[in-house]
Amino acid sequence: MEDESFDPLDDPEERRVLYAALDSFRQYRKAAHFNITHLRRQSFYSLPAPQIDLLSSPPFDLIKTFQAVDEAIDSNANIAEGILELGPVAFGIDSTDDSWHGTAKPNDLDKARSTIRQLYRDWSFEGSPERHAAFSPLLDALSRCLPATPAERHRHRILVPGAGLGRLVFDLCAAGYTVEGNEISYHQLLASNYILNCVQHAGKHRLYPWALGFSNHLTRSAQLQSVAVPDISPAATLQQAQAETESAVHYSERMSMSSGDFCVLYKKPEYRGVFDAVTTCFFIDTAPNVISYIETIRNCLRSGGHWINLGPLLWHFESAPTPAERDKQRGRTVSGGGNGDDGIGEPGSFELSNDEVVALVKHYGFEMVEQKAASPTGYIQDPASMLQNIYRPVFWVARKI
Amino acid sequence: MEDESFDPLDDPEERRVLYAALDSFRQYRKAAHFNITHLRRQSFYSLPAPQIDLLSSPPFDLIKTFQAVDEAIDSNANIAEGILELGPVAFGIDSTDDSWHGTAKPNDLDKARSTIRQLYRDWSFEGSPERHAAFSPLLDALSRCLPATPAERHRHRILVPGAGLGRLVFDLCAAGYTVEGNEISYHQLLASNYILNCVQHAGKHRLYPWALGFSNHLTRSAQLQSVAVPDISPAATLQQAQAETESAVHYSERMSMSSGDFCVLYKKPEYRGVFDAVTTCFFIDTAPNVISYIETIRNCLRSGGHWINLGPLLWHFESAPTPAERDKQRGRTVSGGGNGDDGIGEPGSFELSNDEVVALVKHYGFEMVEQKAASPTGYIQDPASMLQNIYRPVFWVARKI
Repeated sequence: MEDESFDPLDDPEERRVLYAALDSFRQYRKAAHFNITHLRRQSFYSLPAPQIDLLSSPPFDLIKTFQAVDEAIDSNANIAEGILELGPVAFGIDSTDDSWHGTAKPNDLDKARSTIRQLYRDWSFEGSPERHAAFSPLLDALSRCLPATPAERHRHRILVPGAGLGRLVFDLCAAGYTVEGNEISYHQLLASNYILNCVQHAGKHRLYPWALGFSNHLTRSAQLQSVAVPDISPAATLQQAQAETESAVHYSERMSMSSGDFCVLYKKPEYRGVFDAVTTCFFIDTAPNVISYIETIRNCLRSGGHWINLGPLLWHFESAPTPAERDKQRGRTVSGGGNGDDGIGEPGSFELSNDEVVALVKHYGFEMVEQKAASPTGYIQDPASMLQNIYRPVFWVARKI
Repeated sequence: MEDESFDPLDDPEERRVLYAALDSFRQYRKAAHFNITHLRRQSFYSLPAPQIDLLSSPPFDLIKTFQAVDEAIDSNANIAEGILELGPVAFGIDSTDDSWHGTAKPNDLDKARSTIRQLYRDWSFEGSPERHAAFSPLLDALSRCLPATPAERHRHRILVPGAGLGRLVFDLCAAGYTVEGNEISYHQLLASNYILNCVQHAGKHRLYPWALGFSNHLTRSAQLQSVAVPDISPAATLQQAQAETESAVHYSERMSMSSGDFCVLYKKPEYRGVFDAVTTCFFIDTAPNVISYIETIRNCLRSGGHWINLGPLLWHFESAPTPAERDKQRGRTVSGGGNGDDGIGEPGSFELSNDEVVALVKHYGFEMVEQKAASPTGYIQDPASMLQNIYRPVFWVARKI
């Protein structure tokens, strides 16, 4: 992980957010056992005795179900603790310092749970249909916009804002590009760092993505479905890709990750015109002010460079209309590493429809090269569930004039 | 509305819940203007001046959008106030008594908003695909299980638990059956009473089901789509159906609605064996304890009677594992009209998978006559949205042995 020059430990608010993220992985096991199975056992044993007897016996076996869910929680918690083991080291926290223990709030624990679950999408074989629907239009567009042999793709520098658990960054690097991911969430940064840099072999962990939810299952085995994480060995795959693409530059020099607020960082003069393409995947609707995203992308793209976008418009701050509520939702109370004039601390927000976003992108000096409906796809969606949350994302390619 | 013998005004807790429901319709207009447009205008005017200028001009026109959303809120609020006008009268509240003003909590206001929006599903032409997917398997099964000419269908008495806004009850009555709906929510009872008994003509109201949400719209006009409510004149449709079915009993004697907790009411001895069929549509997962539902249905069905079910298993109390939290979510703190030993006040809960529900239904003395996957369908889903929440419900018919 490239940490840039910014050290979160120097900023009291950033330190607090990092500590809470670390602590939430530390508490994953205990919190999940309490919230998911302990409370359910309590509720179960409040039933009339004949019902307890009935539901404890085949074919119901609810007590066995609680045990199986506890085992699933333990398996997921092993991942959380793998992430945690690496975290303090990566951020230069002394191993004897436990002042961050107990700092996670319920919101942080939710984020730890969703980050672990997100490994399904980014780093399991079963998540590949979701990745294919989201990533392949981006990869195809890149090869059209930036024609080059795989060996020469390293000349093209790509930025991936909202890099999340790092799979798109990884796939672009494997394809030969020089890629920089950016991510603001410490939960995601810690998890992607663990998978990309520390997990040496495919299938190291078993993840139970659906075990913590008890609704909409046709069978109990659907709830207890597990997937291997990661689906591939990141290091071995990059080595193999290096050989196949015959890239002139080693993959370790073509992949990096920056942490911090996208707008604060990439509006800086040193980033002016440095990228040949920016790919935004399920990202632009994380903006309270999408103009700020557009200006940032315009700043860091070279003239003639391409912005390739795929996603819906589930505006993340729709339910948090005031800056104070937005900061609370983000887990920050002041701008992260910024001066408070930009990025997180920025006041004002609005939500656009898709045609308005497209008009705004054009207004800020882009021409639309391509626009289409992308394939419908779930986002961390159990394909067996009785409830399918399916996105119908739009896809477009804009060129900086 | 058949009020049974129970008067909610006699019970302090029931009175509180009824008052809060009434007040939430009273506050719909003001609360929606505040939460939806006022806070957004505030956020909008916090933007830098050049951005305000840009976004106030074509093709964005965000100020015009806020005005249009305000008009949509006003149109929806006319429905809320129609419901409200009838409410105190229906429950015998003195028109000079305003002690219930200001009693609604945020949770009650949410319920008023979702009840108004639910009119899309039950009482608009555009909602007919959702109704068709959910209701037609139930109607088809009834005609198979209870063969009779339309004129003689009145001999068959059907119970619809969780009757909501009354459309299934209405459709069954129009088909010639004798139908009783049951509903616990005062929000839903007030709204169904208004539509069924007071709205004289089709298209009296314009409902803007999607106007209050700003996410996942391809165009602004999608957000501002309106539908006519109701799609038909309930009275004229029942008169016409009366003539067409040549039913031997007038529709006004074949349709009724009971209020209160399903289990408390229909476990009573006077309901033993009185129904020929029970239809549960998106209902059984509202149970903290589905055994209680099964026992209740068994009690009120005659021997050989049919239980026809369609729905997913989105267990409503999954996130509220303790009885206190469940009561809070229901809006009740003690059992409504019961003695505290049953229904709402009942401790204990659990969530089953579909195969376990089926096994449990068999265990309690039913045989499964038919089981299949039902058609996928949204539930109050904008068909134009970039996010589709699609259920894949199961359908089954069980016969009381």
